Amino acid sequence: MPDTRKVAVIVGSLRKGSFNRMAAKALTEVAPEHLRFETIEIGGLQFYNQDSEDNPPEPWIMFRDKIRASDAILFVSPEYNRSMPATIKNAIDVGSRPPSKNAWKGKPAAIVTVSLGPIGGFGSNHALRQCCVAVDLACMPQPEAYIGHAPDLFSDDGALKKDDTREFFRKFMAAFSKWIEAARNR
Amino acid sequence: MPDTRKVAVIVGSLRKGSFNRMAAKALTEVAPEHLRFETIEIGGLQFYNQDSEDNPPEPWIMFRDKIRASDAILFVSPEYNRSMPATIKNAIDVGSRPPSKNAWKGKPAAIVTVSLGPIGGFGSNHALRQCCVAVDLACMPQPEAYIGHAPDLFSDDGALKKDDTREFFRKFMAAFSKWIEAARNR
Amino acid sequence: MPDTRKVAVIVGSLRKGSFNRMAAKALTEVAPEHLRFETIEIGGLQFYNQDSEDNPPEPWIMFRDKIRASDAILFVSPEYNRSMPATIKNAIDVGSRPPSKNAWKGKPAAIVTVSLGPIGGFGSNHALRQCCVAVDLACMPQPEAYIGHAPDLFSDDGALKKDDTREFFRKFMAAFSKWIEAARNR
Amino acid sequence: MPDTRKVAVIVGSLRKGSFNRMAAKALTEVAPEHLRFETIEIGGLQFYNQDSEDNPPEPWIMFRDKIRASDAILFVSPEYNRSMPATIKNAIDVGSRPPSKNAWKGKPAAIVTVSLGPIGGFGSNHALRQCCVAVDLACMPQPEAYIGHAPDLFSDDGALKKDDTREFFRKFMAAFSKWIEAARNR
Repeated sequence: MPDTRKVAVIVGSLRKGSFNRMAAKALTEVAPEHLRFETIEIGGLQFYNQDSEDNPPEPWIMFRDKIRASDAILFVSPEYNRSMPATIKNAIDVGSRPPSKNAWKGKPAAIVTVSLGPIGGFGSNHALRQCCVAVDLACMPQPEAYIGHAPDLFSDDGALKKDDTREFFRKFMAAFSKWIEAARNR
Repeated sequence: MPDTRKVAVIVGSLRKGSFNRMAAKALTEVAPEHLRFETIEIGGLQFYNQDSEDNPPEPWIMFRDKIRASDAILFVSPEYNRSMPATIKNAIDVGSRPPSKNAWKGKPAAIVTVSLGPIGGFGSNHALRQCCVAVDLACMPQPEAYIGHAPDLFSDDGALKKDDTREFFRKFMAAFSKWIEAARNR
Repeated sequence: MPDTRKVAVIVGSLRKGSFNRMAAKALTEVAPEHLRFETIEIGGLQFYNQDSEDNPPEPWIMFRDKIRASDAILFVSPEYNRSMPATIKNAIDVGSRPPSKNAWKGKPAAIVTVSLGPIGGFGSNHALRQCCVAVDLACMPQPEAYIGHAPDLFSDDGALKKDDTREFFRKFMAAFSKWIEAARNR
Repeated sequence: MPDTRKVAVIVGSLRKGSFNRMAAKALTEVAPEHLRFETIEIGGLQFYNQDSEDNPPEPWIMFRDKIRASDAILFVSPEYNRSMPATIKNAIDVGSRPPSKNAWKGKPAAIVTVSLGPIGGFGSNHALRQCCVAVDLACMPQPEAYIGHAPDLFSDDGALKKDDTREFFRKFMAAFSKWIEAARNR
């Protein structure tokens, strides 16, 4: 078995009954055991502003430290208006600055997008991939994970109720585990 | 001369010495006279969260009202990590909800992106265009405005010092004026 | 009723039983009467190569002339590997050169994407929109048309058998008609 | 020293005096010695058409075989109308079908884009990255290579004349070599 790896989970939606949060939970439940997950909250990060770098807000500092301490990143994101939500974009930017201390640098990553309708967050998924290139996160190419019709997948208490989705999540996390071991060595 | 049109200016950068703000000022100075500009601040908008819609924050309400009262939108944005900053993405999302009251709906828009280096914010420009489709903003296709090497364009007091850039801005705003008159009638 | 408008229809798939071709037919059948459609074939265009401009291939010349003679463009495209097929990209490039004679310049356009699965060609749709900006085609922002599950929509003889899709197509083409009248006047 | 790796070089431009071809040559000249390069021509591939799969054209078969026999892929591409040229898109599609025999599957890749002007093929670079996700090519995230102002970089005989560009190419190819060793093991 590979060494324990710490995976930071970043969820794009802030609402309490978020399907993204349910999906994140379901993903971690079927992941290989040597992966340890910590959800890192991003809703309390101030908008990135270079003027604040002389005296960075405490939440920025804590966020950057947590990302630096992680071995890999799992993004679980809704799509808002054909792109990622501002929470995720802001987290990317806060974590990336100052450039000489880019906290994301060199880490493996995976992206899961979740939507109410059929499209599965395609626009969010690829908009985020473009940013990952910039901050030197190596995103797993396959399998892609566009999770559509989210309300049909989860029960009222947030549990995943579809076996084929659970099986897909299991394969996705197994592939991510392999990807982490490969891409961390570049 | 066409009727007076109110154009909302949305600037993506929050820092005081923002080249984007300088560019926005220079653009409005050479625009046709019947266009009236108001910069609408977006740095104070809370992250979009659907749970807040029952009792929306005051800044959201004011922002939506100002957008609704505008005839057209001019975005001036930097590029952060190959996409738009979170401020702009959040403004798009806050303005678009609830869907039945999408404040952007049907308005003409134009996008100018500004960068320190040579690329001129290409990634930000097109990432924003994709969101504009979703919220039914009709973006002017040409001329495209990728303003690179921003530090060379402005003097210390923020004035545009390059005549060819000023001439390009004049043509851009003249084209935008025509675009507003055309695209508002769909 | 508006004046007659000639709309060039460009279909991205070359295969005989193409669902895109079926969709194109269904779209034109429910369009306002003053729109006249001609499908312009693109499968016979040589790959764009600037070296050939001294003595352009006959198919390039004919294609450019047909585009120039059109009032508007309707693209109907599948998605191949998360983007538009090469046929459509090549047509865009051939039509756009030399830059001083860009045949697309200033025309209104609309995009419909069609897929076998649920995603409805999202990647193709937006990849094409990015190119339309470059060649000065003004793409209608809304309604977006992502037509998924195509095999369920058409009968064996290629007829559209779903009434709700037909109704959506009717609204789409009515909106396109308005868009043509607006965007042609910029 | 790592084992010898065969890298397929795919150049997007067909014209004789292509700056992309010059860039490809310059890149291979400064690469680590254990990388062996073969340029695979794509200008003679017929447009992808599923109807031809029963009896695939000889150039498709040869292309797919060459890709399968490669350890990694280096794309060098111009930007046409804010995206990759049709040649590259077609090569992606031909190589990817039928899905069960996707020739690209699991290989490491790198992308260099080249432009006459300042933007360095940004739109082409990221449009291609989106397709690489679909065909399971693992693209190196950093360094990004946007090579602008190409006519200033090469002498009349096609040799790279700028030392800083050569040094960047050397670092790029060294990083690619590491990326190949890492990403091939997933």
